[in-house]
Amino acid sequence: MSIDLLLINLDHVGIAVENLNESLATFKELYGVEPIHRETVASQGVEEAMLSVGGSYVQLLQPIDEDGPVARFLQQRGQGMHHLAFAVADIEAALRHLESQGARLVDVEPRIGGQGKRIAFVHPRSFGGTLIELVESP
Amino acid sequence: MSIDLLLINLDHVGIAVENLNESLATFKELYGVEPIHRETVASQGVEEAMLSVGGSYVQLLQPIDEDGPVARFLQQRGQGMHHLAFAVADIEAALRHLESQGARLVDVEPRIGGQGKRIAFVHPRSFGGTLIELVESP
Repeated sequence: MSIDLLLINLDHVGIAVENLNESLATFKELYGVEPIHRETVASQGVEEAMLSVGGSYVQLLQPIDEDGPVARFLQQRGQGMHHLAFAVADIEAALRHLESQGARLVDVEPRIGGQGKRIAFVHPRSFGGTLIELVESP
Repeated sequence: MSIDLLLINLDHVGIAVENLNESLATFKELYGVEPIHRETVASQGVEEAMLSVGGSYVQLLQPIDEDGPVARFLQQRGQGMHHLAFAVADIEAALRHLESQGARLVDVEPRIGGQGKRIAFVHPRSFGGTLIELVESP
């Protein structure tokens, strides 16, 4: 696989919020966009909503579990951007490439995220303090 | 203007970095993407590089001025995502709509950002702790 083909798109930006309903109402008032999907992802301890903007999404994340990673992020940093997600064609090939380059992977193998998609996280220490998620494009 | 048409696309995610050259080298190693544009934007106290990913960009920002907003962000929070930018068709109409909804604007009128584009920032207090930039699509 050519690494030129690793990233297909900027899939979404995940934003941690205290109150999903209030944030959705504010986003609609300010930017006129309503969610196209809403789901509780128990494995990540969040309720999430996806807002479609052009070819990408804004993902709002409210913790449902006080010990989950998004709850801890809110406690430490407050509301704000939590992760940046890229769509990739082949998530396993992407993870093997990242491993070969010495990247620190949160998920060595893909797991199932929202909407049943295969996802994996790359540790913020690997690039610019930013938690990066890979999402396999169906 | 219909507010349904306010946002055209997720234009870019701006990431504050300590060292632009090192971050560009890392991004190329991990994700195979090189910058398509690089520019010093003195008015914002940064040197910036744009990395094209699908229909959006990752923007890396290194401060060139110790008193600028990106330098202060790095001092306070360290490297990480700094702002989220949406492309809009008519930035003045978008700003008037946001003002009518009570949003707190950093820029009441558009100013010129990188690549000569008309931009304006909306204060993080207006939505989910996230600094949002509007970019007028040419």
